[in-house]
Amino acid sequence: MVKICIVDTTFARVDMASHAIDAILTLMPSAQIVRRTVPGIKDIPVAIKKLMKEEGCDAGMVLGWIGRSMTDKISYAVYSLAMQLVQLELERHIIDVTVHEDEADSEEELYRIAVDRARKHAENLYLLLYRPEVLSTRAGTGRRQGYPDAGPIEP
Amino acid sequence: MVKICIVDTTFARVDMASHAIDAILTLMPSAQIVRRTVPGIKDIPVAIKKLMKEEGCDAGMVLGWIGRSMTDKISYAVYSLAMQLVQLELERHIIDVTVHEDEADSEEELYRIAVDRARKHAENLYLLLYRPEVLSTRAGTGRRQGYPDAGPIEP
Amino acid sequence: MVKICIVDTTFARVDMASHAIDAILTLMPSAQIVRRTVPGIKDIPVAIKKLMKEEGCDAGMVLGWIGRSMTDKISYAVYSLAMQLVQLELERHIIDVTVHEDEADSEEELYRIAVDRARKHAENLYLLLYRPEVLSTRAGTGRRQGYPDAGPIEP
Amino acid sequence: MVKICIVDTTFARVDMASHAIDAILTLMPSAQIVRRTVPGIKDIPVAIKKLMKEEGCDAGMVLGWIGRSMTDKISYAVYSLAMQLVQLELERHIIDVTVHEDEADSEEELYRIAVDRARKHAENLYLLLYRPEVLSTRAGTGRRQGYPDAGPIEP
Amino acid sequence: MVKICIVDTTFARVDMASHAIDAILTLMPSAQIVRRTVPGIKDIPVAIKKLMKEEGCDAGMVLGWIGRSMTDKISYAVYSLAMQLVQLELERHIIDVTVHEDEADSEEELYRIAVDRARKHAENLYLLLYRPEVLSTRAGTGRRQGYPDAGPIEP
Repeated sequence: MVKICIVDTTFARVDMASHAIDAILTLMPSAQIVRRTVPGIKDIPVAIKKLMKEEGCDAGMVLGWIGRSMTDKISYAVYSLAMQLVQLELERHIIDVTVHEDEADSEEELYRIAVDRARKHAENLYLLLYRPEVLSTRAGTGRRQGYPDAGPIEP
Repeated sequence: MVKICIVDTTFARVDMASHAIDAILTLMPSAQIVRRTVPGIKDIPVAIKKLMKEEGCDAGMVLGWIGRSMTDKISYAVYSLAMQLVQLELERHIIDVTVHEDEADSEEELYRIAVDRARKHAENLYLLLYRPEVLSTRAGTGRRQGYPDAGPIEP
Repeated sequence: MVKICIVDTTFARVDMASHAIDAILTLMPSAQIVRRTVPGIKDIPVAIKKLMKEEGCDAGMVLGWIGRSMTDKISYAVYSLAMQLVQLELERHIIDVTVHEDEADSEEELYRIAVDRARKHAENLYLLLYRPEVLSTRAGTGRRQGYPDAGPIEP
Repeated sequence: MVKICIVDTTFARVDMASHAIDAILTLMPSAQIVRRTVPGIKDIPVAIKKLMKEEGCDAGMVLGWIGRSMTDKISYAVYSLAMQLVQLELERHIIDVTVHEDEADSEEELYRIAVDRARKHAENLYLLLYRPEVLSTRAGTGRRQGYPDAGPIEP
Repeated sequence: MVKICIVDTTFARVDMASHAIDAILTLMPSAQIVRRTVPGIKDIPVAIKKLMKEEGCDAGMVLGWIGRSMTDKISYAVYSLAMQLVQLELERHIIDVTVHEDEADSEEELYRIAVDRARKHAENLYLLLYRPEVLSTRAGTGRRQGYPDAGPIEP
């Protein structure tokens, strides 16, 4: 039985974690989910690190939401690097689902991106844990989360 | 009894820590507060790290103030990353209250943002320590500190 | 016998790893290749670190693909720094083959860059492992991967 | 008796360290100063780290000078982060006195900024070491080094 | 007898290391030089770290060459930070000679900058190792490598 730690935020404008958990449990019905919510992305790295260690999770997922300003982009860079440090120390995958408000002009489109990205990354987590050979068959094929696949460039 | 370490700066133009402490003690009357003030944000990470270790604080809060120039933004990025490193090493939450001068054109508005952000993050600290389940009910609901909540995007 | 770990992504739009492996096996017919594919560049550092340790690889190669947006560039910076951390901790070379979509306007050109870069970096890996003296003779000669060599500047 | 390590550069265009040392010795006549000079800011972090460890300094001061180009700003970011790492590892304050050439158009003004900043940060070092309660009384009062104080924003 | 490790690249368009070595041996005739060449700047940090440890070098020098694009600048930032990490871990100076293609419009000028910078930093390395008191006399005097000295700003 696989155990998955999930941390999301109250800052996000879509409850992406619920969509991710739904997709995870569809693909891995016996998975055990441990979920925490923190205020914003800067609180995620320490929260997921502690959670992964205390709960002994096999893998993790973090869900962040980034505003439009330059300051938001800087915070994203810092958050993203901290998540690399956590993964490298724990030597476990923590899939990163991030939505940037500048990805779309309308709330409808942001919502669609957020849900699609959360669900597709849930599938990626499943593939990393149980079906790595499927990922290998998709190498270089331009897969996207939140958007339609770009597809491979044919020679 | 919870013990909370707080570090702020003489650079900041609003005494945000006093507002944060007021809100903390309203929510957690028995909390023990240890506060230090340093010149600027670059002095915060080593100060809060030492203080958290020496005082054995359960959690921390740092309050920074960032100018308008590109150099200020770079310093913010560096400071913010150092605060991630401190949290990851100590494995304790240190809530980050940062006000950027480019968030508002008037001093009145900056003041309002600073106070609101300090008080709301004090509440976030309380929720992280005592009521994590309340944070979970707010997942993806677009909470903001310093501004009105953005609210959730409805599907 | 040399053992080489390779990690690429499903995000990339060209299967660069296959070209790299072909070039590696031409130059080092007895090399043992261990390959994994992950969703995107943020998943590469932890994947290659684990793989290098578990498989005892002598050297590694990672192949990334970067979009055109500012967010993509930030993610590249974070990924690139994480790859430095992995190399410094393991004290082994991990050659980085990265293609940026803003390097070319047409898919044909991106394809050509991707294949050329993968193959030339495969040769670089061979030289690092078996013929470091050849690299020394090329010092300061303006070698490029993905483009024609810039050549040395003559005094 | 307090011992203070100081590292500055030959790149800087003002001998800020002499001004800082003068101010330090005025405020702390019994302080022992250990000073080294390196070529540029990238040489400072390893120099001050070694010096602080070898000399057993209680605190440090580094003085940097940054040019106007984008490359200079990048180098500043890297230098600044390295200085955070040194402080976090040693768990000792190292006050950072940095002058950016884009802070002023005239050499006269740059000189004035440099001297004022060096002297005021010398006072900050004194307060951190001997009078932390004075810093606390100045929390949120908009103190500046190199410029007139911005002052507190009144509610 | 001092031992100096040097790593440069095949990407660079000028063989700066040969000029640096010539200057080093003029100033320190008994110095022992260990030199390696790698493809590009991202390969330098792990190479110099390994070399310094395996060869027991007292100090190091790395020579990089940076293109004109934003991606090149990001790679420079990452490389530069990794070089700080190596120096801080080894606690030894590694002088960084970097030429940016956007420093000049003509190849002639780039060549001149590259050679001048390599030779002057070789002198800096000598001063760091044998004549630190000379560096102290030059504190705040606006020394440059690759360009004429800016000189001190007179009060």
